[in-house]
Amino acid sequence: METITEQSLTQPWSREEFEAQLRAKSRRYHIHHPYHRAMYAGELNREQIQGWVANRYYYQIQIPIKDAAIMANCADREVRLHWVQRILDHDGHEGDAGGIEAWLQLAEAVGLKREEVIDQRHVLPGVRFAVDAYVNFARRAPWQESTCSSLTELFAPEIHQSRLDSWPDHYPWIKDSGLSYFRKRLSEARRDVEHGLRITLDHFRTREAQERALDILQFKLDVLWSMLDAMTMAYLHNTPPFHSCPDPVQSP
Amino acid sequence: METITEQSLTQPWSREEFEAQLRAKSRRYHIHHPYHRAMYAGELNREQIQGWVANRYYYQIQIPIKDAAIMANCADREVRLHWVQRILDHDGHEGDAGGIEAWLQLAEAVGLKREEVIDQRHVLPGVRFAVDAYVNFARRAPWQESTCSSLTELFAPEIHQSRLDSWPDHYPWIKDSGLSYFRKRLSEARRDVEHGLRITLDHFRTREAQERALDILQFKLDVLWSMLDAMTMAYLHNTPPFHSCPDPVQSP
Repeated sequence: METITEQSLTQPWSREEFEAQLRAKSRRYHIHHPYHRAMYAGELNREQIQGWVANRYYYQIQIPIKDAAIMANCADREVRLHWVQRILDHDGHEGDAGGIEAWLQLAEAVGLKREEVIDQRHVLPGVRFAVDAYVNFARRAPWQESTCSSLTELFAPEIHQSRLDSWPDHYPWIKDSGLSYFRKRLSEARRDVEHGLRITLDHFRTREAQERALDILQFKLDVLWSMLDAMTMAYLHNTPPFHSCPDPVQSP
Repeated sequence: METITEQSLTQPWSREEFEAQLRAKSRRYHIHHPYHRAMYAGELNREQIQGWVANRYYYQIQIPIKDAAIMANCADREVRLHWVQRILDHDGHEGDAGGIEAWLQLAEAVGLKREEVIDQRHVLPGVRFAVDAYVNFARRAPWQESTCSSLTELFAPEIHQSRLDSWPDHYPWIKDSGLSYFRKRLSEARRDVEHGLRITLDHFRTREAQERALDILQFKLDVLWSMLDAMTMAYLHNTPPFHSCPDPVQSP
C-alpha cells in the first residue's frame, strides 16, 4: 500500500480494472481451502464427504432466503424480474425440481438419509453462524451491496467443474445421479454472475465505493472459508464441538 | 430419551428442576474447550494469549449492542431499568471506565498495542460470525429469549476465577493490572445472572417452552465454543484463513 500515491487512491478504477480487481479475489476462494483440496485429491473418506454434503445443505436452503431478502430491499422491478429466477432455481418450479432437491439427491448418492439432512442434525454451529452472517448481511445491506456479495459466483463454475472432474475417479462409490446439482449450477452460475457483475460495476463508482465492493466480496469469501474451517475441526481434526466435555452429554 | 414417558415430556419441570437443567448445561461451557484448557494449564505461548485477547475484544464490544437490542425489544420499564446497568458496566459511566476499557488494559498487559485491538485487524471471520449470531438473535428474538441466551453468565464466575488463579503463575509476563477485568466481572456476572435467571424461570412455563430455553442456552454455548474453534484453527493449528492461498495476497 505504501507505494500507492494519494491520487491513485482517490481516482476510481476503470470498469475493466475494477472487474479485474474483483476477479483477482479468486485467490482467496475456498477452492484453495485444505478441505476442498483434499476432496479433489481423493483424500476424503466417506464420512468426510458426507459431513461436507450435510453441512453444505444448510447453505443451499438459506440461498433462496438470502435472495428473498435482497428482493425485499429492492424497489427496482426490472432487477426483481431477473432476481426471482434465482429463487425459482433453488426452490424449483414447474419442470425443474430445483437446486435444493438436487442437493438432497446428492446427499442420498453419498449415502446419507434424506431425513438426517433435512433435520439438520449434522449442521455444525460454525457453519450455521457463517451462513447466517451472509443472510443477515442481505437483510440489512442495500440490494446492490448484497448483489456484490454474491459475486463469488464468478469463481463457482471452476469449483463445480473440479467436482465433476475428480469425483467419478476418486469416489466411484458416489452414484452419478448425485452430480446433477453441479451440472445444473455450471450454466446457472454463469448466467447469474453476468447480471450481478453488471449491477456491481454500475453501482460502485468512486474509488472508495470500489474498495468497499472488494471488502464485501471478501466478506463472502470469509463465509465460505469459515464453513470449511468448522468442517475441518469436526471431520479432519476429529474435534467436533464438545468432543472434550467432561461427562457424556445427554439430552435432559 | 427412549426411557422418558410421554407424560413426563409434556409435564413442565418444577422451578427447581428447570433451574437444575439450565445449570447442567455447564458441561458444555467453553471452560472445557481445548483452547481454554491449554490456557489454564499454562500451555499457551504469548501469541496464543494475544490472539485470544484480541479476538475476544470483538465479543466485548458487541455486548452493549446486544444489550441495547434486548432493550429495544422490551416494553417493560422495570426490566429496562435493570438491564441498562449492563450497558453502563461495559461502556462505562462516571466513576467506572467500564468493561471495554478494562479489556483494552488487559490487551496492553499482554503486549498488544491499543490501536491494533481497536481496529480489529486480528479478529478472525469465524469469531465475528459467531458473535454476530448472538447479536442478531437479540435483535430478532423476544427479550425474554435473549435474556435466556445470556445465562451462560451462570458459569462465568468460575471461568473468571480460573484466569485469576492460573495466570499469575503461568504467565508472569502479564502485568497484574490486566486482570482487573476478570475481578470486575466476578461480582457483576453474579448480580446479572440473578436477574436473568428470574426472568427465564418466570417466562418459560410449559415443558415445550422449557426445552426451548435449553436450546437457546445451547445456542449461546455454541457461540462461545465456536469462537474458540476459530482461534484453534488460527493459533493452535497455525491455519488462519487463506494460509494456503496460491499467491501472496496483497491489498489491491
